[in-house]
Amino acid sequence: MNIRMIVHILGWVTCFEGLFLLPSCLVALICQEGEGLVYLGLAALYLALGSLITVRSRRPSSGQFYARDGFAAVALTWILISVLGALPFYLTGDIPSLIDAVFETASGFTTTGATILTDVEALSHASLFWRSFTHWLGGMGILVFMMAILPLSSGRNIHLMRAESPGPSVEKMVPKVRQSAALLYAIYTVLTLAELLLLLAGGMPFFEAITTSFSTAGTGGFAVLNSNMSGYSPYLQYVVTVFMLLFGINFNVYYLLLLHKFRTALLYEEMRWYLIVIAAATGLIMWDIRNLFPTLEEVFRHSAFQVVSIITTTGFMSVDFDLWPKLSHTVLILLMFIGACAGSTGGGSKVSRWIILFKYLRTELRRLMHPRMVSRFRLNGAVVGEEMIRSTLLYLVAYFLTFVLSLMVVSLEGYDLVTNFSALATCYNNVGPGLNRVGPTLNFGFYSSLSKLVFTADMLLGRLEVIPLLALAASVAERGRGLLSGRRLRHGH
Amino acid sequence: MNIRMIVHILGWVTCFEGLFLLPSCLVALICQEGEGLVYLGLAALYLALGSLITVRSRRPSSGQFYARDGFAAVALTWILISVLGALPFYLTGDIPSLIDAVFETASGFTTTGATILTDVEALSHASLFWRSFTHWLGGMGILVFMMAILPLSSGRNIHLMRAESPGPSVEKMVPKVRQSAALLYAIYTVLTLAELLLLLAGGMPFFEAITTSFSTAGTGGFAVLNSNMSGYSPYLQYVVTVFMLLFGINFNVYYLLLLHKFRTALLYEEMRWYLIVIAAATGLIMWDIRNLFPTLEEVFRHSAFQVVSIITTTGFMSVDFDLWPKLSHTVLILLMFIGACAGSTGGGSKVSRWIILFKYLRTELRRLMHPRMVSRFRLNGAVVGEEMIRSTLLYLVAYFLTFVLSLMVVSLEGYDLVTNFSALATCYNNVGPGLNRVGPTLNFGFYSSLSKLVFTADMLLGRLEVIPLLALAASVAERGRGLLSGRRLRHGH
Repeated sequence: MNIRMIVHILGWVTCFEGLFLLPSCLVALICQEGEGLVYLGLAALYLALGSLITVRSRRPSSGQFYARDGFAAVALTWILISVLGALPFYLTGDIPSLIDAVFETASGFTTTGATILTDVEALSHASLFWRSFTHWLGGMGILVFMMAILPLSSGRNIHLMRAESPGPSVEKMVPKVRQSAALLYAIYTVLTLAELLLLLAGGMPFFEAITTSFSTAGTGGFAVLNSNMSGYSPYLQYVVTVFMLLFGINFNVYYLLLLHKFRTALLYEEMRWYLIVIAAATGLIMWDIRNLFPTLEEVFRHSAFQVVSIITTTGFMSVDFDLWPKLSHTVLILLMFIGACAGSTGGGSKVSRWIILFKYLRTELRRLMHPRMVSRFRLNGAVVGEEMIRSTLLYLVAYFLTFVLSLMVVSLEGYDLVTNFSALATCYNNVGPGLNRVGPTLNFGFYSSLSKLVFTADMLLGRLEVIPLLALAASVAERGRGLLSGRRLRHGH
Repeated sequence: MNIRMIVHILGWVTCFEGLFLLPSCLVALICQEGEGLVYLGLAALYLALGSLITVRSRRPSSGQFYARDGFAAVALTWILISVLGALPFYLTGDIPSLIDAVFETASGFTTTGATILTDVEALSHASLFWRSFTHWLGGMGILVFMMAILPLSSGRNIHLMRAESPGPSVEKMVPKVRQSAALLYAIYTVLTLAELLLLLAGGMPFFEAITTSFSTAGTGGFAVLNSNMSGYSPYLQYVVTVFMLLFGINFNVYYLLLLHKFRTALLYEEMRWYLIVIAAATGLIMWDIRNLFPTLEEVFRHSAFQVVSIITTTGFMSVDFDLWPKLSHTVLILLMFIGACAGSTGGGSKVSRWIILFKYLRTELRRLMHPRMVSRFRLNGAVVGEEMIRSTLLYLVAYFLTFVLSLMVVSLEGYDLVTNFSALATCYNNVGPGLNRVGPTLNFGFYSSLSKLVFTADMLLGRLEVIPLLALAASVAERGRGLLSGRRLRHGH
């Protein structure tokens, strides 16, 4: 394990977290809130601490940086930012419990949007801004952001980027990882600005517009009003719907559009299935809730809003769908598990993984019938290799087992199955709201600290797609065993 | 596809179904029920039809018999026995709807034990006997039964036995498949008789004792009383608990005991985990329902009974556990997905598959950290090969996808998630009762015909462990496409 290098990266992360707190100081200044001092103090502290660590651990060319180091770095980065990012909530008193603050911050960075807050509007503007800003930062990835700026060697970068980026594979847009990262952030920023302008044009106040844009872009779901998106005009709800949809699409599509490869972009297989699922789910829910609203337009608007909000794992709500009929509930729960496209800011298992699983099943059935047949299949035009199938299956197994184990622990509290299951589904898939006691107008505050820790871990597992955190845990367990038995491990040093 | 051979096998199956109906005729004779004539008539018809088909398709050595033929033969056998076995229920008027009768028969042969009947006691004794007898026949396998008797060539046998026997692998007890099949049925019969004697010793009436023994042996769950097992004495409930537990254990263990290999038998890895899970689940539920019963003995008895009944996928009930607290519900639902041991008569995913998945995850995580490490693991002392891992993963993918698709179709009816999810879980894993509207004192009668067909298909998918039926569907689709396009397929003829 290249510990020095990992510490070096964590030093940089601490620095960046300090920088990320500065916009909240500005918000506090404008709104004349005393909480700004906490944000300023922590920003200074993180910058100082981070610089110290970075300088002391410098010697970036020392030793190899393996995949396992990449996993450990990414996992530790996300744990670190969740804890460091929770301190301002805690120290300002906006969230009096530290575990609640960590839950909220992890929910922000992982773009889940599940909350423990009953009254969001009671928070300071600085904290509200920080809450939404974590969505924007977490959406595209903290390390991807660093990579776009820092001169790290490229072998290291690809391990970090692979481990942090959502979806079964990172297709490099351009040969250099650093340029890919910069390009991703450029597209991301432009889309966010476009939404901001359209929201402002619809008469949304500036503070609400910018925080909503951040939440939409990261497919997060935190809002600054207790009414979430339900109080806004139909125009604003449509704008949010369209942008949620856009941020759930593989960013490669936008890159193809930039290159004027319109045909390739429009025929992108994963996007096609993503849109088909959205259309089908919207149709089903429209039929199911046809009698709940006076006009067809409202039926369509609320169906489309909720479907897009859940499949992209944003988690905004335009209406309390916990009151909808049962069919809608099942459809929404299933959408949580599908998730958005790979290479977008959305969570869940990703549409492409489902395509891979279906094609894998079909291919293996054919192989059973014609043992000598060469069995290969394609995704988005490219042949899916053994390694990607292997990692998709490993993901499925790891996801499945950790999900079931989490459900067992959370069930100890004795709440009903719909609450526990939907709470886990919504956290693990980084959606936000669930059903019943964790419905869209309610929150996770009533769970015990143990369950909150499980949910926090699951949000991180979901965002990092399980393997990095498990690999970190395995490394720690291995080193622990090694220390206990007094033997030096052959590898691992 | 070796269609002649498959038809030949189906002819034999039809003959055997005729024979299997004869004991019900005897029951009708003893109870002086007119329904016996229907059973006798159908028995004669099946024997005549079956013999005709068998003779006309004779030439058993014609052509190769591949794995795909084995899958098709097994899948078609199970569909055939479910339809043929439903006719007596329908023609006697005991179950007036044909779809309901097919559901009930599939539920019997697959040893699910889910019912559409509100009042079981209204049935004729002949039908009640047939209902429980299907459990006993389906538990160990219809084709395994045929193999123990018929002189089929061995290459064919192993494909059939692999496709029909539960669990990730068939470890042959003795080199000859036919002897293995006979041995399995011998152990099965002796255990069934032992239970029968112990139930009679406890004062259970003969008819109830024999049907209960059949249901327990097949891990089915049909009872002849509306009160299921809840009206019996503690002694009888304990006897049933112990035998459910025994029939959920890998029959290899009994074979090892017969060989006096006590140490190997007691250390059998899958059985150890099976017992650990049962102990842990019983403990959890005891704690959860500690205030529901006056004495600790009752708390223990009902906890153990329900845990063993669900994990072995029998589905008997000693008390209405739908009224228990939520934690117990979650534990029981999870047990449905675990299931019994491979090579037992129980259903579900089997304990050994879970062990394989956990060990696979651990090994793959190690491989990520030490890419050059040789990664292998063992189950029950033997190294698990690539092929078994591959088929376990394929099973997981196929199970997962068909489960989700079924849930979608069933959800169209608009019942609540707990009802639909537990109904599917209980059918797919061949358990029997679910929660809420399909709780242990209720039934599946209220679902639409479409949903009942889905449940029936899922019971068969679960019993045959998904792949045979999907392979059959793929074969049919392939031939259909071939016929449509007018081209002869390279393989498949």
